[in-house]
Amino acid sequence: MEKFELTRKYIKSIQKAIDRKDEKTILEKIDGLHPADVAEILDELDIDHGLIILQNMDGKRASDVIIELEDDIRALFLDRLSSQEIAEQLVENLDSDDAADVISELPEDKREEVISNIDDVEQASDIVSLLNYEEGTAGALMGKEMIWVSDDWTVKTAVKEMRRQAEQIDQVYTVYVVDANQKLLGRLPVKKLLTTPVKTRIGDVYREDIRVVKTWTPQEEVAQIMEKYDLVVLPVIDELGRLVGRITIDDVVDVIKEEAEKDYQLASGISSDVDQTDTVWQLTRARLPWLLIGMMGGMLSALVIGQYEHSIKLIPAMAFFIPLITAMAGNIGVQSSAIIVQGLANNSLELGGILPKLSKEFSVALLNGTVLSLIALVGSYFVFNDFQLGLTVSLALLTVIIVAALLGTFVPLMLDKYKIDPALATGPFITTLNDIIGLFIYFMIGQLIFTSL
Amino acid sequence: MEKFELTRKYIKSIQKAIDRKDEKTILEKIDGLHPADVAEILDELDIDHGLIILQNMDGKRASDVIIELEDDIRALFLDRLSSQEIAEQLVENLDSDDAADVISELPEDKREEVISNIDDVEQASDIVSLLNYEEGTAGALMGKEMIWVSDDWTVKTAVKEMRRQAEQIDQVYTVYVVDANQKLLGRLPVKKLLTTPVKTRIGDVYREDIRVVKTWTPQEEVAQIMEKYDLVVLPVIDELGRLVGRITIDDVVDVIKEEAEKDYQLASGISSDVDQTDTVWQLTRARLPWLLIGMMGGMLSALVIGQYEHSIKLIPAMAFFIPLITAMAGNIGVQSSAIIVQGLANNSLELGGILPKLSKEFSVALLNGTVLSLIALVGSYFVFNDFQLGLTVSLALLTVIIVAALLGTFVPLMLDKYKIDPALATGPFITTLNDIIGLFIYFMIGQLIFTSL
Repeated sequence: MEKFELTRKYIKSIQKAIDRKDEKTILEKIDGLHPADVAEILDELDIDHGLIILQNMDGKRASDVIIELEDDIRALFLDRLSSQEIAEQLVENLDSDDAADVISELPEDKREEVISNIDDVEQASDIVSLLNYEEGTAGALMGKEMIWVSDDWTVKTAVKEMRRQAEQIDQVYTVYVVDANQKLLGRLPVKKLLTTPVKTRIGDVYREDIRVVKTWTPQEEVAQIMEKYDLVVLPVIDELGRLVGRITIDDVVDVIKEEAEKDYQLASGISSDVDQTDTVWQLTRARLPWLLIGMMGGMLSALVIGQYEHSIKLIPAMAFFIPLITAMAGNIGVQSSAIIVQGLANNSLELGGILPKLSKEFSVALLNGTVLSLIALVGSYFVFNDFQLGLTVSLALLTVIIVAALLGTFVPLMLDKYKIDPALATGPFITTLNDIIGLFIYFMIGQLIFTSL
Repeated sequence: MEKFELTRKYIKSIQKAIDRKDEKTILEKIDGLHPADVAEILDELDIDHGLIILQNMDGKRASDVIIELEDDIRALFLDRLSSQEIAEQLVENLDSDDAADVISELPEDKREEVISNIDDVEQASDIVSLLNYEEGTAGALMGKEMIWVSDDWTVKTAVKEMRRQAEQIDQVYTVYVVDANQKLLGRLPVKKLLTTPVKTRIGDVYREDIRVVKTWTPQEEVAQIMEKYDLVVLPVIDELGRLVGRITIDDVVDVIKEEAEKDYQLASGISSDVDQTDTVWQLTRARLPWLLIGMMGGMLSALVIGQYEHSIKLIPAMAFFIPLITAMAGNIGVQSSAIIVQGLANNSLELGGILPKLSKEFSVALLNGTVLSLIALVGSYFVFNDFQLGLTVSLALLTVIIVAALLGTFVPLMLDKYKIDPALATGPFITTLNDIIGLFIYFMIGQLIFTSL
């Protein structure tokens, strides 16, 4: 099976089948599709059409589809289902971590109703314990479904017990070894089971080299660990070292993508997680705040330039290079801050404090600035045939480049030091700040040169 | 074991131990560390110190460390090793995909020398076949190490054969089922092995629901498939449907991160893959090209404004709002293009052509533009007490916002249509373009209003 390609034609034909209540065609259309594919179809349909498709699927498959829906679409579907339906048809078919995710998205009162409707006491208590972990921690990310064996069992007992546990689990990644107090001791590679005599004690063959996180480890750190050590699954322990859950790589891939996208969106001046399929209203709301910052910056810039109205009257050509100065200040600032933000996100900055990084950035800015200001000197002199103007633009550009680069490096490092997301410093924020400072520098140097030369 | 934290103190102490040839301390320091951690240490040391650490490790572990080094650092190490050392000490300890990666990084002549020095004929031929796949395809990403069984074997034969195969493989993810011609039929879940009688024919118990890619599938698509369907491993087939390799999630996590980082860097005006630890020279080279684009844009802007020198002489206040216009044009353009680029990267754009997307973007721009231009009207009127100026700024802003939004949406969509990376349209490129167009609009509207009112 290869990748499923959703087309407009496909959507139209399934809409038609639903409208004429042609259940056979509906079933044929979605038969054999992965739940993620069906979810993609539902994301494009309206809710009533979508509900009909779900009703035509069996409970387990319908539950898998609901998990794969986009958050805002899923909320619409959950809104249409009663607490009992959610508990009995949806939650009982899901892994504990997915079930907890769904329940945590419900309104408070419905949440409790759903939990009280779950028949399986063990599952209900798993879900309640998962709901207690703070969002963004390993505890909130983990699932309870895993296979574990005790160190004092024989391989034979272990295999028997594993068979029983495996029935409830889709995919076996790693078998964990715990002691009598459920304290995590290590892991038993699946291939060991294929190669060890059945009477061997687990305690004699398990491996201790296992990496763990605590329930309160932040999800960014979980992602870094799994990525760095190429892990597919990572066990989670509590304060007493007891095995309480496991995090699988697919959940972490989502975290990695979310983190990267958040930084990208902040750098592009989009404040919350939106994409092109959201409504005009959602898109506007996500973009307006940063535009207002840019607007305020533009007004402040107008006030700065206003102070030099006299210079502009005398030398209107001073105004010609305003966009050059602000554009370069902005570009340099964004470059510098992006390099720092990405370094912080990847945990790959050079060791040492802020000072060595600023001095390196100073060297880069000096190199770039020298090249660019020489070009500016020659360019502006030849085009406008005015040496004083050329000198002003060139000197201002060099100064602005260095200041913008240092600010672009300094601001995200400082934010990070005070536990504020450094990505906030990229994009519109750093450009606006550098615009204003750059204009100050430009007009100050201009005044100096034109009055003294 | 939790995450290893590299500190400057640690680096200093290991440097000292190496300098006084204190092998015992060196070994103590790195004992029990994951190869990825040792690689992190080596990234910080100079090459001679690093080589001494590698010489003190056993061959398998040293090989794993070399794979984990950053590309540029690894090149330095490989440069110090002879072809024979690379073949016999490094390559033979590696999985085929890692070995092919290392060899593909070598200079052409050394590459052949290394391959001719590999003793294991099977491994050598695996590597040669992997080297033939184009970079960026599934073939180049896959490894040869996997476990497969034939559909006409019994479970007992299969388990015996798997034990043999498993000895050479670190981690068992999925067992593939092939026919006599090595054509991929399906998969055998590990848990089935725990629950099926030993005399059953594999052909009767395997599952057909398996997702595959072709050797020539682009790596971006591989990543999308594994992400969407939450896969840990994905088999690769050739033109004849034969199983030729498998791709594991850890390699794909790297692809996902690289893709996201590339887009982020392009949007920030950094042209190649650099980070803060690179040299001043590398950083300058990666940043200068985009700055030159900004520079040219600034010069063109100067020429545009130069056409309106007369207006500026008459109404110097026109110059005050130049930064406001360019900043808003830039911010809007970056927002719009970022939303499109991210949508394309995630394959999550709404169905339908370019037109519906432009019309949605138009609505968003109209909403944002109305709010912002009203603020601009009130703000500029009250601060500068000039109705004509306020009207000019306000009308220009609305027009500029709409044009910039449409361009920001249109340009990346067109680039993508013609198979050019749409991320090229973000950042400095779109800001520069919008700056120039925005200034044209601003001064044209200004001339119109001041001469007609």
